[in-house]
Amino acid sequence: MKRPTIADIARRAGVSKGAVSYALNGQPGVSAATRERIIAIAQEIGFNPNSAARALSGAAANAVGLTLCRPARTLGIEPFFMELISGVEAELSARSYALTLQVVADPEAEIAVFRRWWGERRVDGVFVCDLRVDDRRIPVLERLQLPAMVIGGPGHTGTLANVWCDDGAALVEAVEYLVALGHHRIARVGGLPGLLHTEIRTRAFTDLCARLGLSRAVTVPSDYTGEEGGRATRRLLSSPERPTAILYDNDVMAIAGLAVAQEMGLSVPADLSIVAWDDSALCQLVHPALTALGRDIPAYGANAARRLLAVVAGDPVDDFQDQTAHLTPRGSTGPPPRDT
Amino acid sequence: MKRPTIADIARRAGVSKGAVSYALNGQPGVSAATRERIIAIAQEIGFNPNSAARALSGAAANAVGLTLCRPARTLGIEPFFMELISGVEAELSARSYALTLQVVADPEAEIAVFRRWWGERRVDGVFVCDLRVDDRRIPVLERLQLPAMVIGGPGHTGTLANVWCDDGAALVEAVEYLVALGHHRIARVGGLPGLLHTEIRTRAFTDLCARLGLSRAVTVPSDYTGEEGGRATRRLLSSPERPTAILYDNDVMAIAGLAVAQEMGLSVPADLSIVAWDDSALCQLVHPALTALGRDIPAYGANAARRLLAVVAGDPVDDFQDQTAHLTPRGSTGPPPRDT
Repeated sequence: MKRPTIADIARRAGVSKGAVSYALNGQPGVSAATRERIIAIAQEIGFNPNSAARALSGAAANAVGLTLCRPARTLGIEPFFMELISGVEAELSARSYALTLQVVADPEAEIAVFRRWWGERRVDGVFVCDLRVDDRRIPVLERLQLPAMVIGGPGHTGTLANVWCDDGAALVEAVEYLVALGHHRIARVGGLPGLLHTEIRTRAFTDLCARLGLSRAVTVPSDYTGEEGGRATRRLLSSPERPTAILYDNDVMAIAGLAVAQEMGLSVPADLSIVAWDDSALCQLVHPALTALGRDIPAYGANAARRLLAVVAGDPVDDFQDQTAHLTPRGSTGPPPRDT
Repeated sequence: MKRPTIADIARRAGVSKGAVSYALNGQPGVSAATRERIIAIAQEIGFNPNSAARALSGAAANAVGLTLCRPARTLGIEPFFMELISGVEAELSARSYALTLQVVADPEAEIAVFRRWWGERRVDGVFVCDLRVDDRRIPVLERLQLPAMVIGGPGHTGTLANVWCDDGAALVEAVEYLVALGHHRIARVGGLPGLLHTEIRTRAFTDLCARLGLSRAVTVPSDYTGEEGGRATRRLLSSPERPTAILYDNDVMAIAGLAVAQEMGLSVPADLSIVAWDDSALCQLVHPALTALGRDIPAYGANAARRLLAVVAGDPVDDFQDQTAHLTPRGSTGPPPRDT
């Protein structure tokens, strides 16, 4: 099929090719009504000016932005983000969109990056990761009218669309499995407080343990690093009535927890059961392999990218609930010791 | 670096600038054969009429590109690249440059991305990672005159500048340490064959072991994944005269190797010493913590970024040798068992 040209639009609109060019490049020389009509026709017939020409005119960047607000050393060993990026990237490159990446120190720096990107038309839209309970980025993005897709939820996204998954339901599956194995001294090493998904998991854990009468259930807050995960584990295993099972909010902390158990002479799973969240390949590198809550993170990223491009195109986009993480039992979980 | 112009194409094709313009704009006035030849030359040198227009306007992309040619699942758990990216990114954002990222399936796809990025003026320069012994990307980048910085070497970079480090010297430090501990049955699980740094390490290992009279030294090639690293370890530890020490070409494979030793009932380091390459935080997550060859990867990335921007600016840039990785002994290495 012949690719639509400016001449095709001009013919349909009954105007000159020059007028079409003015209209699409945001230059004066046509009335607002004519400009709208020309843009509508261009969209309808799938006219796609060369990306470089568009960049010249400032009309579209053909790139979307992703900011990562984590310290470099944590990012390096956290498989989640690289898996997410690979999924995002696969979808974008199939549609000839580029991914612009920036590591930021804090949410303030992140907001500054959003403003600069949009001001310079470096991106056509952005992803919002690590959603917070009361997230300052949301109202800023709304005011900027910068197309955005929140990766997280549910709720707390203002008028922005999001993709999310039910972390509460996943947590219930893992804890109920441990209870079925006979555990009643269950602890959780949580991720960064203030992040929405951390709070959702903490609430779900507290509610479920109260309902099941697990009075000694406790969440130790941490920061997703192996160092802090190991420290929290050492503290839990040094308490007079140590837990017989620990659930970790990511895989890196679970691996650090396994090492601390070995260091303290405890056998996994005979003395301690371990469950990881985010079933990356790391979970199967260690011995015993870790029981883990997992889902397809690259697919989650691809989904978010598809939806962000729809937002950029001005299409209506609903919130979307992705698959719930499911539990894969491996060698790190078993019944608790007899005397507990 | 100068951008290709219509004059460059005309000179190469031995025709007038007018003929080039006719050919590229689909107008009559040139023969079909000449048109084909002109289009081929334009593609080869990365000419794009719109990018030329953009260059005329004096606008730079203010972005540089990084392609990653690894499967998503490997990237996710390989700390090296995320650490490299965080260093690159810190330097770029301080200079208001964006980083454009693309995951590619193979070197052919990577070359196509380079051509498109440069043709559409999406980037002002690119990084070249995972340098191969006979790397097809180098001559293509030279022909495109796309500013580039090779992360790897020494040598094999044509006229392109590079940053590199002395992997051979680092390998010697690790092996000599194992020999000093009393080991003489030493094996190595190597990374992807064909990559220059893999070949340099293999040659250094073979040469050193020959010099030291370690007749049973062997390198098992692998692919940097934990899965393959574990499989190679299982094979080595199942041989009649199993090694008492194994050196791994990355941290992920070393962790998988530790798990295989545990799975086979061997104690580390009493029965087997393990040395990892790339001392990411992963090495200290496991028990025992891994002895590792490490250096500052974010600083390496920042250095490469600084130098790429100098190339983009047209400044003279020499090849640069970064610090050599040094050995940090931890709990995974010790003397070999007495009977060996």
